[in-house]
Amino acid sequence: MSDHEIMFRDDMTVELVQHVGGDASVVAAAKVSVETPGPGMLADREASAGLVRYLMRHRHGTPFEHASLTFRVEAPIFVLREWHRHRVGWSYNETSGRYRHLEPVFWVPPAGRAVREPDAFKPARPLLLEDERLRAAADYPIRSAYVAAWRSYQEMLDAGVAREVARTVLPVGLYSSMFATCNPRSLMHFLSLRTRDDGAARPSYPQAEIEECARQMEAEFTRLFPLTHAAFVEFGRVAP
Amino acid sequence: MSDHEIMFRDDMTVELVQHVGGDASVVAAAKVSVETPGPGMLADREASAGLVRYLMRHRHGTPFEHASLTFRVEAPIFVLREWHRHRVGWSYNETSGRYRHLEPVFWVPPAGRAVREPDAFKPARPLLLEDERLRAAADYPIRSAYVAAWRSYQEMLDAGVAREVARTVLPVGLYSSMFATCNPRSLMHFLSLRTRDDGAARPSYPQAEIEECARQMEAEFTRLFPLTHAAFVEFGRVAP
Amino acid sequence: MSDHEIMFRDDMTVELVQHVGGDASVVAAAKVSVETPGPGMLADREASAGLVRYLMRHRHGTPFEHASLTFRVEAPIFVLREWHRHRVGWSYNETSGRYRHLEPVFWVPPAGRAVREPDAFKPARPLLLEDERLRAAADYPIRSAYVAAWRSYQEMLDAGVAREVARTVLPVGLYSSMFATCNPRSLMHFLSLRTRDDGAARPSYPQAEIEECARQMEAEFTRLFPLTHAAFVEFGRVAP
Amino acid sequence: MSDHEIMFRDDMTVELVQHVGGDASVVAAAKVSVETPGPGMLADREASAGLVRYLMRHRHGTPFEHASLTFRVEAPIFVLREWHRHRVGWSYNETSGRYRHLEPVFWVPPAGRAVREPDAFKPARPLLLEDERLRAAADYPIRSAYVAAWRSYQEMLDAGVAREVARTVLPVGLYSSMFATCNPRSLMHFLSLRTRDDGAARPSYPQAEIEECARQMEAEFTRLFPLTHAAFVEFGRVAP
Repeated sequence: MSDHEIMFRDDMTVELVQHVGGDASVVAAAKVSVETPGPGMLADREASAGLVRYLMRHRHGTPFEHASLTFRVEAPIFVLREWHRHRVGWSYNETSGRYRHLEPVFWVPPAGRAVREPDAFKPARPLLLEDERLRAAADYPIRSAYVAAWRSYQEMLDAGVAREVARTVLPVGLYSSMFATCNPRSLMHFLSLRTRDDGAARPSYPQAEIEECARQMEAEFTRLFPLTHAAFVEFGRVAP
Repeated sequence: MSDHEIMFRDDMTVELVQHVGGDASVVAAAKVSVETPGPGMLADREASAGLVRYLMRHRHGTPFEHASLTFRVEAPIFVLREWHRHRVGWSYNETSGRYRHLEPVFWVPPAGRAVREPDAFKPARPLLLEDERLRAAADYPIRSAYVAAWRSYQEMLDAGVAREVARTVLPVGLYSSMFATCNPRSLMHFLSLRTRDDGAARPSYPQAEIEECARQMEAEFTRLFPLTHAAFVEFGRVAP
Repeated sequence: MSDHEIMFRDDMTVELVQHVGGDASVVAAAKVSVETPGPGMLADREASAGLVRYLMRHRHGTPFEHASLTFRVEAPIFVLREWHRHRVGWSYNETSGRYRHLEPVFWVPPAGRAVREPDAFKPARPLLLEDERLRAAADYPIRSAYVAAWRSYQEMLDAGVAREVARTVLPVGLYSSMFATCNPRSLMHFLSLRTRDDGAARPSYPQAEIEECARQMEAEFTRLFPLTHAAFVEFGRVAP
Repeated sequence: MSDHEIMFRDDMTVELVQHVGGDASVVAAAKVSVETPGPGMLADREASAGLVRYLMRHRHGTPFEHASLTFRVEAPIFVLREWHRHRVGWSYNETSGRYRHLEPVFWVPPAGRAVREPDAFKPARPLLLEDERLRAAADYPIRSAYVAAWRSYQEMLDAGVAREVARTVLPVGLYSSMFATCNPRSLMHFLSLRTRDDGAARPSYPQAEIEECARQMEAEFTRLFPLTHAAFVEFGRVAP
């Protein structure tokens, strides 16, 4: 590949590839505490908003685990690095830099992306300022670093260097792909930490790019588990 | 309820209530290591026995996590007690003795169930001997203890004692119900420890009743994930 | 063993048998985010209440995982059944009814234990009423059921029935023993669900006996991790 | 910082910073299955090689969880990326590129490091060939890419760009720091996958750099848990 094949992106792909369960499975699992489940219970049970709200408010978390969502994700390595810190109720398979020749797709900050660090920056509330001139000015150092890294990677591969060694020069802005599987409880935990929402009981300040992924998952979650999502929002966006 | 409502059972119920994924999702998740997944990848991908065998042999476990199986189970408490020790990749909701009036269904050893402990009994290989006369003789002490426990439970409930206190007399032979959700990897780990198979690389000696549950799950697993199950058996019934 | 060897207890044993880490290890782990740790960092670092409070308030949970506490527990099976539902960050080893002849120690409700279920009983708030007369009246059905169960168990063992079969008649009020290991984060999650505290952001209504265990663990936790515990209480007794 | 402050390293730091437990705690936890533990059990119990071997051979894994080891690690991001895929029984805190100005320390392949990919390269057995001339030739593209990336990073920070944006150009060869806590069981699982050993029942082919970390942890593990480690080796380097 030559330089002109390098691609720059600023969006995230989060596609739901399979799922099972819904509000009805949450309700059915909760009901087992107080009644004997019969055959076909899951199919017959109508979801009840009242029961779902009760479970969320009282932090009865396990009924929210009998369901599964699998997403296909394309995002820069720096996003996946944060994502993989979620260990419980999450499964991952990601592109391997040891086993394949990686592709030259790199992340650049899109127009409107706040990039300036304020003087009063604090880790507890790492908010940034919009500054389009600065963002545009950053475009050159970002792209030139990417191009230099890609040329070194290519040069080494052409010379016969192993992929696991050559990849060491590639930046965390490189796009990678993964399948990620979770359940509604682990997804809500992710959403509570990876979205910013002023209505949240405990506000989080995620980096914009992982939040963009979280928002896409939240849209699917809202569609598939409307009662569960409504209760999640009502009780402060904290996972039960 | 009076005594004549007491029921005795000797079988286990394990019913698949929902699932998602199959050998194709195992393959699709594994392929993400070496190629870029596209939209619809899961749907299009044909499962490949060779790749599944490769993953199993080399203990690449994560591709076996992007699927989900939910079972409805009826089994005695002593079975669920063993089951709940499986913590990773398993979710449970079970009947609560605090919140509901329990039902008088109790386990008794069925005809043919080996019940005699040999003189040479060892925890490492806790095999029992068949002895129908002994089994029949055990029927009376078992049933009479159950009846005594149930009468005490009823007597206390009738007097206004809370369910959480009254239940303390109920035996671990009482049937309980649960929903249990797992993925193929956590299921294979369960099967490796809860089935006895002389072809296993590391033989296990489970109690017969949890093995009966495991066998029912294995039948469903074989039907839904035939390539994965065949590889599991071929490589010694050890979870990857 | 004969009947007169049967023992009745009403207390819980929770003994700290080993631990490592403290507020200083929480602080050291958190500091790695923003500075380069050097050799001996853990030893040198003075714990800082401000940083610990910051972590708790913003739900930075992982710094609370680099420590370990192991407890030896003696409690009835119905308590351990609830305990074992805590899967994440907990490890267990418990007495086996398959491998050993169990001991006749049974739980009875102590004086002052609220045992009456009010007419308005609700699972969401399962509060009980004190009624010493009723508690005393329950003593006979409880003890007689225990004695009947123990006699059946003994009778079967004497006849050569395997322990795994004979135990089926034993009640969930039987005492069992275990080692349980956790970290401060998983312990706080346990405490948040297994103690009742009107100052909690999300009140829980645990059964009194598991709460008694939780209170003993909380006392050790307070002694070993005073800053962490103070922050846990300050921010509503919710695990970060 | 100017270019001349850039540092190149080729080693990994893995320092044990705290631990608790040993072979004696493995034995004590296992013994609880068959006898009643008393106060001080952990302290008094002498470790028994026979029992430890028995546990390992029969895959009784839980007794190996009542202990804890915390390591301070300095390694390139590509090593930590592999490490963080270990989710169960592992806790992490790592340097944050959002919250701190990172340091210019980069990994280069050391003399003797096999870097040539053979024509017959297969993911199942990704062995590389030594080729010192090629390794030396790779030095320039690697270092120049690092320098270009570092200059871009510095340039952006100097202009006021937020750290979370500027870091996107930094390569996965950049050193990072973390605390990692595990227990003997999760450590053995790591060792089984991250060391190459021809005596292993299921050989693994890890990248050399993560194996270097694993070897350092294995040395500490051998010192602290000699009986457990010997049994791990004897039974094929598979975690129980």
